[in-house]
Amino acid sequence: MALISPSRRIRRTMFSEGVEAAGVKAYTVYNHMLLPTVFKSVQEDYHHLKEAVQVWDVSCERQVELRGPDAAKLMQMLTPRDLRGMLPGRCFYVPIVDETGGMLNDPVAVKLAEDRWWISIADSDLMLWVKGIANGYRLDVLIDEPDISPLAIQGPKADDLLARVFGDAVRDIRFFRFGMFDFEGRSMAVARSGYSKQGGFEIYVDGEDKGMPLWNALMEAGRDLDVRAGCPNGIERVEGGMLSYGNDMTDDNTPHECGLGRFCDTQTAIGCIGRDALLRVAKEGPTKQVRAIDIAGEAVPPCDRVWDIEVKGKKVGQVTSAAYSPDFKTNVAIGMVRMTHWDDGCEVQVRTPQGLRDAVVREKFWA
Amino acid sequence: MALISPSRRIRRTMFSEGVEAAGVKAYTVYNHMLLPTVFKSVQEDYHHLKEAVQVWDVSCERQVELRGPDAAKLMQMLTPRDLRGMLPGRCFYVPIVDETGGMLNDPVAVKLAEDRWWISIADSDLMLWVKGIANGYRLDVLIDEPDISPLAIQGPKADDLLARVFGDAVRDIRFFRFGMFDFEGRSMAVARSGYSKQGGFEIYVDGEDKGMPLWNALMEAGRDLDVRAGCPNGIERVEGGMLSYGNDMTDDNTPHECGLGRFCDTQTAIGCIGRDALLRVAKEGPTKQVRAIDIAGEAVPPCDRVWDIEVKGKKVGQVTSAAYSPDFKTNVAIGMVRMTHWDDGCEVQVRTPQGLRDAVVREKFWA
Repeated sequence: MALISPSRRIRRTMFSEGVEAAGVKAYTVYNHMLLPTVFKSVQEDYHHLKEAVQVWDVSCERQVELRGPDAAKLMQMLTPRDLRGMLPGRCFYVPIVDETGGMLNDPVAVKLAEDRWWISIADSDLMLWVKGIANGYRLDVLIDEPDISPLAIQGPKADDLLARVFGDAVRDIRFFRFGMFDFEGRSMAVARSGYSKQGGFEIYVDGEDKGMPLWNALMEAGRDLDVRAGCPNGIERVEGGMLSYGNDMTDDNTPHECGLGRFCDTQTAIGCIGRDALLRVAKEGPTKQVRAIDIAGEAVPPCDRVWDIEVKGKKVGQVTSAAYSPDFKTNVAIGMVRMTHWDDGCEVQVRTPQGLRDAVVREKFWA
Repeated sequence: MALISPSRRIRRTMFSEGVEAAGVKAYTVYNHMLLPTVFKSVQEDYHHLKEAVQVWDVSCERQVELRGPDAAKLMQMLTPRDLRGMLPGRCFYVPIVDETGGMLNDPVAVKLAEDRWWISIADSDLMLWVKGIANGYRLDVLIDEPDISPLAIQGPKADDLLARVFGDAVRDIRFFRFGMFDFEGRSMAVARSGYSKQGGFEIYVDGEDKGMPLWNALMEAGRDLDVRAGCPNGIERVEGGMLSYGNDMTDDNTPHECGLGRFCDTQTAIGCIGRDALLRVAKEGPTKQVRAIDIAGEAVPPCDRVWDIEVKGKKVGQVTSAAYSPDFKTNVAIGMVRMTHWDDGCEVQVRTPQGLRDAVVREKFWA
């Protein structure tokens, strides 16, 4: 692996000081910001995540804030998910599509009030699309990126840790709901959510001045819980089938191809810009779709480009993320597979940099 | 420095194989793509760039292609530069602004034909803004990212090298013009442009299948010219005052603050979305502006966050890029300075990570 060159353009976060003190070894760049990827090792971080509790600097999940009379209308224009039943205090995972139904982002929408929303984005400058649409349709809404940085608390001991800092009421937060909690006099949204299957929370830290104080408070409070700095784990997220925009889907893909059809209410999502394009795909279904792929043999190298999935030398799909899983003792992978070969148990081959490997398509992910 | 983690999301380029074979040591991420930053060392690369010729993988300068009857109209909506006099075959550096006059990108627009343009973008997903505007205003235009990857040939021997591969006619290409040249039966735009002050070209390589063949042909043809793989150099670009979007400007800044007022024809750029917002600033001028900053003392560390510029403890600006220049034997820097202190020769102090340093504001860059 090569080094990453520092520059202001690759933004540091309000928690970078803590991340560095914890001995971060590698980063990726996400929304023009540093996102840690390795502390001790991907494997060691993986085991620890499943056993204890980690604090993740996911500031790179930037917020696009919509405020004003047309905020809810604009939000519905962005997604084929019907938002009419969504109450303040709820988080919705929302595919965002362009006029062709292509995925532009797969964020979590946070409804603060009827006229105030956050879109907690994956890796694309979604604010540019939102601003362009708002401008073109002359909507009465303000759009900006507030000084909000999510800090994720993930792992089986997340409830115990967070209760020590915010009080036992955090234990009552339901999945994909949030409540407002106080830290040093600052009110912050705390949601039960996060990019792992180990459970936990995301704190929408409001204001850089509270960043390191909160980081330090969590580290201090969790000492006997073996709390550590962590990050989204490249093995655990594939086991759990958590998709990554830019890896497992791009603007070439519809939500249905990404297996996100259940988050699309294309018939009733009136106003959604991609609705017309998606009506047919919603009815007929996609011709390829995201699947779990079980790749046999020794550990595969990092998946830094697509690997073709083949049957008798003919391409039937592609692998987009892969890692060796210590717990499942196989290479877990995410890929997009044509309908002719997407059934559970279908035997295929994957063209890895180390040659062709036998593999099996699975309907379900591992965790 | 930490390592950079590989993933499909951080896209490889059609030249990555050549870059790796040349021993790349570090990268940055630019438009979700790998951009090399160091081969031998930043200093060694710097001297070589000024003496010989380098081949740069700048695939990350992605193209946003506009095609259709409304392409020219849309292009003018994006920028306050008056494009009416621009002929096909020309490249224009164009500030792109939002409705508040804030910079969204500072690309080079390439006019292929009246109804076909490329926007060769800096580091932001400008395509999302362009698509949002086109959709909102119901323009008759197709927008996409073609399989075009710029390859820059930079350095004093660039003409000699390129003539050997494309013929002597490349010597006649004038600055910021382009011609169509043939490589192995594929016609490609070759422009006299590039992100250095050493002169050279950018080849808009059309089609991944021609990427490594062209890379190899250049390396082969330039062996006696000491051609090497290179990249935009962190010292040379600051000496030359070449701005970097995300480093030296953000969407907080107007073009006038970035010293790009000469590329704005705000009165006549009818249709530009940010025109209203910029009319006042065009008349009255900005209250802060980009300047060269000469920082005294030993070599400064990499500028990975803004450094305040102070006078008697009061903030009067910020440094956004900095590097020690072997040729000018000082720390060259780019910063944004308030009008009270932006005059040539103004003595200030810069708060670097190593403490306060004496510095001088300069009107002109070094090269």
